Amino acid sequence: MTYEELFSQIQKKRSFLCVGLDTDITRIPKHLLSEKDPVFAFNRAIVDATLPFAVAYKPNLAFYEVLGAAGWESLKKTIDYIRNKSPNVFLIADAKRGDIGNTSALYARTFFEQLNVDAVTLSPYMGKDTVTPFLQFNGKWAVLLALTSNPSASDFQYLENKDGQKLFEKVIQTSLTWGTHHQLMYVAGATRAKELQKIRQLVPEHFLLVPGAGVQGGSIEEVARYGMNNHCGLLVNSSRGILYVSSEKDFAEKAGKAAVTLQRQMQYLLENHGLLL
Amino acid sequence: MTYEELFSQIQKKRSFLCVGLDTDITRIPKHLLSEKDPVFAFNRAIVDATLPFAVAYKPNLAFYEVLGAAGWESLKKTIDYIRNKSPNVFLIADAKRGDIGNTSALYARTFFEQLNVDAVTLSPYMGKDTVTPFLQFNGKWAVLLALTSNPSASDFQYLENKDGQKLFEKVIQTSLTWGTHHQLMYVAGATRAKELQKIRQLVPEHFLLVPGAGVQGGSIEEVARYGMNNHCGLLVNSSRGILYVSSEKDFAEKAGKAAVTLQRQMQYLLENHGLLL
Repeated sequence: MTYEELFSQIQKKRSFLCVGLDTDITRIPKHLLSEKDPVFAFNRAIVDATLPFAVAYKPNLAFYEVLGAAGWESLKKTIDYIRNKSPNVFLIADAKRGDIGNTSALYARTFFEQLNVDAVTLSPYMGKDTVTPFLQFNGKWAVLLALTSNPSASDFQYLENKDGQKLFEKVIQTSLTWGTHHQLMYVAGATRAKELQKIRQLVPEHFLLVPGAGVQGGSIEEVARYGMNNHCGLLVNSSRGILYVSSEKDFAEKAGKAAVTLQRQMQYLLENHGLLL
Repeated sequence: MTYEELFSQIQKKRSFLCVGLDTDITRIPKHLLSEKDPVFAFNRAIVDATLPFAVAYKPNLAFYEVLGAAGWESLKKTIDYIRNKSPNVFLIADAKRGDIGNTSALYARTFFEQLNVDAVTLSPYMGKDTVTPFLQFNGKWAVLLALTSNPSASDFQYLENKDGQKLFEKVIQTSLTWGTHHQLMYVAGATRAKELQKIRQLVPEHFLLVPGAGVQGGSIEEVARYGMNNHCGLLVNSSRGILYVSSEKDFAEKAGKAAVTLQRQMQYLLENHGLLL
């Protein structure tokens, strides 16, 4: 999916919501456990309930790998289900990969060719040659970890070099020589909304993937204030705040309600920024 | 496996060789492609040929994930095969994972409980709470990326903070507050042997996992000179230099010869350091 197509979907759905499919088999409603593939059954119901309100879905690989080969099948089925239901959804594999060049090229093939997602999250620690293999695919995206939303993000991401530049700023600045805003996005934690302002200055045009809205404490209004650009430039993720509102048979209905609540807030913010047609 | 058990295996086999099972289905001998599980057939033959000379095996997850669910099965079968054949082999999942706490806990379960390896490589970018879930398992190890062997390692790992400390040094120093040399190892690229000296000063007791010997240009002698401690403290990895010496029916025999050549060099270095009984 291209930059323009993504913005067009955001305008159409009046939403920049990304639903994080962190599907934990120990937390899904008990009645699904008798299904042949409970994880897929859960995901399918969540997708059916939230698709009108979400422009993106982001399965985190950890939740599937913990189930071994069966987990990969559930993931593949989920992605195929979303693709068949709506070809215009932006799919992000939250994998946080990062390896030497020839190995990164394999990961790129895994995610872009085998799983057929639009984007993969990557860790920048090993530098350019871990990222460039992901930039060789037309219409596909590398989403670099810049500033994450977890408590210990500050262990290294805030370290300042001699010029007073923090590591996450250096990561962003350096990566600008690797690709454009048509290929690269950045993870920017919503728990640090004021830092979004700095990031937006460094990358006025790029999309930012903002995790941590909701459960991790971020405010969508703050994110929009500091992070929105004239192509929206934001995908705000919510996982637990949508998936696990209810653990009963009404889980999908409740997920849909949580998604529409976020979508309405996003519509208001998009309108306020003059981005709706 | 404990620190002492690992050193004991090194003394017994007179080797600190780790064989990297970066099994690329496009590079394995053609006659294996008619097997039901060509990747497993290749790995089994490599393990049979190299087991007397290697204390550790390190499958890189990328090579298995690219094959989807079937790849996970091949990986699981390979690990089970090695475990059954010899319970005293140190198994490292080269996964370079790193995610927020609750997700890292899932990865830890995947690798330590489901796949039953001894160690996992981790990216430090997201800090402490991405690593600590891996330290809750007795006899299991987190192997932190410190200084990697790829060309662009210098993009960020060499960045100096105000005190002149490089990022990879800061990663090591900070992580010392998270766990001990019974739980943590570090990746230290062999292409930068002189840097090993610095790392060894920071962590006199820890094991270092040294990739990049052979194809990537590192010298085992230099690694031993700068990195060996009184428990050896080194696992030196070779992947392509063992797996792909021959692409004919003699591939396993040639792999065994490459492994024994490295083992003899390692035996000499261990003797020189007075570490053999």
